[in-house]
This record gives sequence, C-alpha cells and structure tokens, in this order.
Amino acid sequence: MPEFFHVLPPRQALQILLDRLCPLGEAEQTPTVQALGRVTAAAIMAREDLPAFPRSTVDGYSLRAADTFGATEGLPAYFAVRGEVPMGQAAQISVSHDEAALAHTGGVLAHGADAVVMLEHTHQANATTLEVARPVAPGENVVQPGEDVRTGEEVLPAGHCLRAQDLGGLMALGITEVSVARRPRVAILSLGDEIVPPEVQPGPGQVRDINSYTLAAQVQQAGGIPLLLGIAADNFDQQLQAARQGLAQADMLIISAGSSVSVRDVTAQVIENLGAPGVLVHGLALRPGKPAIVGLAGGKPVLGLPGNPVSAMIVFSLLARPLIYHLCGCRCPPEPPSVLARLSQNIPSAAGREDYAPVLLKRDNGRQIAHPVFGKSSLIFTLMRADGLVMVPLDRGGLYSGEEVTVQLFQP
Amino acid sequence: MPEFFHVLPPRQALQILLDRLCPLGEAEQTPTVQALGRVTAAAIMAREDLPAFPRSTVDGYSLRAADTFGATEGLPAYFAVRGEVPMGQAAQISVSHDEAALAHTGGVLAHGADAVVMLEHTHQANATTLEVARPVAPGENVVQPGEDVRTGEEVLPAGHCLRAQDLGGLMALGITEVSVARRPRVAILSLGDEIVPPEVQPGPGQVRDINSYTLAAQVQQAGGIPLLLGIAADNFDQQLQAARQGLAQADMLIISAGSSVSVRDVTAQVIENLGAPGVLVHGLALRPGKPAIVGLAGGKPVLGLPGNPVSAMIVFSLLARPLIYHLCGCRCPPEPPSVLARLSQNIPSAAGREDYAPVLLKRDNGRQIAHPVFGKSSLIFTLMRADGLVMVPLDRGGLYSGEEVTVQLFQP
Repeated sequence: MPEFFHVLPPRQALQILLDRLCPLGEAEQTPTVQALGRVTAAAIMAREDLPAFPRSTVDGYSLRAADTFGATEGLPAYFAVRGEVPMGQAAQISVSHDEAALAHTGGVLAHGADAVVMLEHTHQANATTLEVARPVAPGENVVQPGEDVRTGEEVLPAGHCLRAQDLGGLMALGITEVSVARRPRVAILSLGDEIVPPEVQPGPGQVRDINSYTLAAQVQQAGGIPLLLGIAADNFDQQLQAARQGLAQADMLIISAGSSVSVRDVTAQVIENLGAPGVLVHGLALRPGKPAIVGLAGGKPVLGLPGNPVSAMIVFSLLARPLIYHLCGCRCPPEPPSVLARLSQNIPSAAGREDYAPVLLKRDNGRQIAHPVFGKSSLIFTLMRADGLVMVPLDRGGLYSGEEVTVQLFQP
Repeated sequence: MPEFFHVLPPRQALQILLDRLCPLGEAEQTPTVQALGRVTAAAIMAREDLPAFPRSTVDGYSLRAADTFGATEGLPAYFAVRGEVPMGQAAQISVSHDEAALAHTGGVLAHGADAVVMLEHTHQANATTLEVARPVAPGENVVQPGEDVRTGEEVLPAGHCLRAQDLGGLMALGITEVSVARRPRVAILSLGDEIVPPEVQPGPGQVRDINSYTLAAQVQQAGGIPLLLGIAADNFDQQLQAARQGLAQADMLIISAGSSVSVRDVTAQVIENLGAPGVLVHGLALRPGKPAIVGLAGGKPVLGLPGNPVSAMIVFSLLARPLIYHLCGCRCPPEPPSVLARLSQNIPSAAGREDYAPVLLKRDNGRQIAHPVFGKSSLIFTLMRADGLVMVPLDRGGLYSGEEVTVQLFQP
C-alpha cells in the first residue's frame, strides 16, 4: 500500500481529483419555484420571444417618430390624440400621420406607432390635441419584440447555479419546471475513541462530536445532502465497515479522523481499502489542515479530514465544496463572500504553505480592520469568535500589520 | 392623504422605517442540526468548560516541563517512560520527576504532567528510556481546561445568524436545541392588468408574473418565508382587499406595482389605507428603483416596489433584506458577497442618486474585469446575463473605465 506523503498545495490536490472525477450526470425535474440554488442539468432555451410585443418603457404617447422631427419648445409638433391603449390589452387603435395614442409604462404601442414620447415632453393643448416639444427617434422608449430574449436563444447554460433572477426569467418564459442535477449525497464519518455524540455527557478524556455537524452544515451550504454515519472507534475493521456502508449509499465520503500520526495512518489504510485508486494525495501544504487525505474509490471522492474542527472546516471549503459543485456539473462554484480589510497585527507563516488565520472584523473610522484571532487550531470557539479567514499565500512568509488583505467571510 | 414625493437615499429611507419598527420578538426551539442560518433569540451561555481536561495538541510525551530545562541535542534530558494514556480515557498513570507518558493529539495528559514535548524532539533510547533534545515551557502543547470556553461565558449573542462553526460549538457544549427567532412571513402581491401567472400563455399585451418569484427567492435567501398572494388587477378596491388579507397573515407586505404614474399613485393610496402611519417615503434617490414606496401599517412594514423586475430586485436588496433581518432581531445582516474588479467601460450616472449597473465578470490575465451589461431596466435577462451590480455613489456623476470597483455578486 503506497503512501505518498507528498505535500501538495490545496488547489493542486483538488485538481488531481477533479481530473479523474465525472459529474453525477443525473437530472431531476423540479418546480422552478423550488429551484433556487440548484444546478441546471442542461442548457435552457427560450421557446418564445420576450417581450412578445413592442412595449413602452415610459408613460407617454405612441406615435410615428418622423412626425416629431424638428419639434422644439418654441415650435412644437401637433398631434391628434386617438385614445389610449389600456394595460394588458392588444392595441385596438392605429395612429397614422400626426396622430398619437396614450401609452403606459409596460403597455402596447398603438398600431402604426414606432416610438413613444415621454409625458413630460408633451402638453395637452385641448381634449384632442397634443403638443410635442421634443423629437424622438424611431424605437425610442420602446422595447422591441425579442429584445430581452429571442426564441431559440440559450437562456442559461448547463451547470449554472440558479439565482433569484434566473427563476424570474424562467417564469417569464413560462418555464415552470426545470431539469436540475440531483443533489450529491455526502456521507460523513467521525472517527475516534474519544468522540461521543453531542447529547451524551462526555466521560473523562472524551469530547463531543463537532465535525459531523460543522461539515453537515457546510455540505448543505454547498447544495449537497449530508448523511451522518455517526462515530466509529479507532479500530481498522470497524472504520472500514462504516466507511464502506457510507460510501455505498452516498456520492462522496468525508472521514473526519483524529490528528495523531497513528490514527492518520489508519484512515489512509481505510481509504486504500475502499477501492481503486485509493489515496491520491496524503498531506497538503496548508496550515491548519496539513494531514488531509484526498482519495478516490470506485469513482467516488473520499476525503480524510483532520480531526480538529478548524482544520476540518478549512479543508472542507478548499476541497469538498468545489467537489460537490463538480458532482453537480457546476465548474464555477459561486464565489464565497469576502471583504477587503487592513490587518491590525502581523500574521506569521512560513513560505511553502498556505496559512489560514481566523480574523475578527471591526470598523474604525469607516475602514474595516481585521484582527487576527490567535488560538490553537483545535479550538472551535476560535472560529466562532471570528468573522472570516485571511489566507497567507504559499510564497509569503507572513503578512504585515497594516497590509490590505481579502477576508473570506463565514456564511450563515 | 399626504404624499411626500420626497426622494431619499435608500439607506435613509430604510432608517426611517427601522427607527419605527420593533423586531418580532417571537422565539421557537429548533434542533441545533437544523438551525443553520437561523437567528438566535437570546444570548447562549456555556454550561461547562471546554475542554473539560488538559488536552495535548500534538503527538508526544507528557511530562514536567521543569525536567526539560537546559536539554539540547548534544546534552539531552532523560526520562523513564511510564506508559501511554490512550485516547478517550482518563489518565490512569502519573508522572513524577524525570518521568514521561506517551500522549496523543487530543488526548489527556498523565497526572502530574504540565507540558507535552513533541515526538519529533524525542528519541526512544530503549524500551523504557526517552531522550528529550529540547526544553518545553509549562503549558506548552497543551490546551488547558476552559481555554476554548469557560462555564458561564457568553458563547453567542442574541440576534446572531448561525453559521456552520456555531452549530459545531453548540454541539461541543451539548446544546442540541437552540432558541431562534421565528422566520418572518413576507406576503408578496403583484399588481397589474397586464400580469398573468407563469403557467398561462399571455394574450396580446399581457406578460407573465416575474416579480412574485424573484422576490420570493430573495425572501428565502434573507431567511423569511414568502407567501405568494398572486396577482391583483389595477383596481383600488381589489388591491386594497388583497393587500389587507396578505398583511393580516404576514409580518411584512411587498407590493410589486406597475411603474406608470397612475398605478404608483394607486399603490400609495392602498398603503395609506392599510393603517397608520401609512406611506413614510415615496421615491428613492436611486436608479433603477426611484418609484419605490416605504410604508408602515399597524406596526408592519409595507414596501411598494417598482413593477420592472430589475428595479424590484435592487430595491428588495436595499430595503426588504435588512428589514427581514431586523424583524428577526439581527442588526447586522450577513455581508452579501462581493469582489473587486476593473471597469471595462464608463458607467454614466447623475450626482444626487445611487445608480446600480449590472456587470458581467471576466478574467483577463488573472484580473477581474467588470463589463457593464447595458439594458433597459425592465429586462430581466439583463440581470440573468450579469454576475453582479456596481453601485455609482450618490456624489459621483459616473464611474470611469479602468476604475477599480466593488461588484456585489448575485447569490444563488
């Protein structure tokens, strides 16, 4: 059983797995109203033009643009008002030379009209006569049929994560059901003789399970369905059995293992025994999170995450999150939120690895200041007291107080 | 019926409403595993110390730090190995002067030990004798009881939006149920003679309802529960009745009205008739979104949003989103995601109003470039083709090509 304790930058480790991993490729039909955050399984085409008719973008009068040419405040053009085109109705009236019809924002133009002059630029001289004080160009203040989208046009590509406006646009086209990628099921297994479920009062030397729950929440945020497998003791056979069962019912397996060397070795062995090719990367150029394991078994990704909660969360965001999106067929996971801030203190690091430091944000004279929350990486409350993470790049030995940095914000 | 067509900056309009609006103040118990994104109804205190025992943060040997003082590679300190403290168990062994016990990452220290020396800095001379090549300070490589959190300490404040790590921290303390603010119910009413439901084939001059669905998705993203009231025609009595019924079953009402002047006036009248004080602000120094109405009726916020989908979404994010968080008792809504980018083109605006321009992001030589997507504000597909919005501040007449701008990203 080869063990490549070959420490790789997280992005490179991810790429090794992505290169060998196919999206699930399973679609399901979902009502569009429930499809927020889902990933499109296929490109979606427009089945009709939008708008379907020439719409006015202002309140005013529809008319022939040519009849307004040369109109000024001093020498207005005069039009006979032929009536009104009410909202939500086809135009029942036509305008010809020097005629106009009242138009509402979003309403239809009168037949024969090719532009709308804004109400503000008109003056009703009497019941049937309108003065227009300014010329309009043909098409002015009008949305033409198909100007928003044309029949046959690709409205959304495959692998697109649906946002609020996408649901609106689909509804506008009458697309009330949409084919989306099935949500990946992500099994989560916590390992360790010392771990007990949260509802249990820990005995001496025991601690409650944290990672099953932080990771489950992160799976949810990435659009996956978490399957909690519970806790397995530090015993190879028991762990392998739990991992096998978990992987069989899921599309991806995350093992949160202890961080001691012996325990890590067992996790690697478990992953090796789940199926070929097994462990692909053992160890990341990352702190915290160095002991992470990246594997692939029977076409399904398997991650071994360090047991300490802070490391586990960071490795999840660097590896598991993009993997879940990849399984859905989404190549560009939505950007996690971030803000720029100035560091209040140096953050020491070492060249050759990525460091992630939790920071607390405070405003000072309208400027965002990032205060590093120093704490041992095993302490979950370090992260609870922080608003986000600052990354020290591989090629930097640290960051300086006063430097402007990007803070990746934790999302609720 | 006074109508203050007093155009205000969006932030100021929001503040006028916030100053008069109480949070709902209704709590409900929720299993912690289901509480992601919910807002805490009260501060949460730790009921125990974490960790509960001195934990090693490394693999190594627990011992008395004083016995290592002066140890070097050339002149190591020698220790008698008294055995191992296994994971998940209380220490059954003690160490005294020049004695050590094997310790695992996350495990308990032997009785009498006050520090852990890392495995890498030791050498097992024989079965029972350990060489230590480096001194450790008392407390080194140890998390002390209560170092993560102490009994009675406030773990989370009231009004906090729960993140993945918060769920983990609560579980670590055995807090498997949490008191959270009830989700606000937000009723959404679409107005307009021209609007038909998405499943209907629009007749001449008709368009399908978009805003009910984009706004419902935005309500969901802000942690509220959308209640779709459907569509009411351009008729005062019908609109007032639908708005009254909606407001009665909800904590907030959003009316998406047409954008023509007459329709806007009717919406303002409807809001005035829902209850005192009625319309607070009519018109924002904002484009698109100027015709928005901010009201309060019987202690519940009522917003009149412009009918065009782009304006409606922008006004929602500026006004409705913070209102929903406020109703939950959360004063600092989570920061929406943003990135810095350079503008590829000028964005014209006018001083005295905030302008929001949709942009498409493209990478060019590793730099993010924001390309404005120009389009009439009534076109939902303008937003579908964009990745985010760039704001032109009130005091600027526009933004220049090449300028660095913050792009507020659309969230899935």
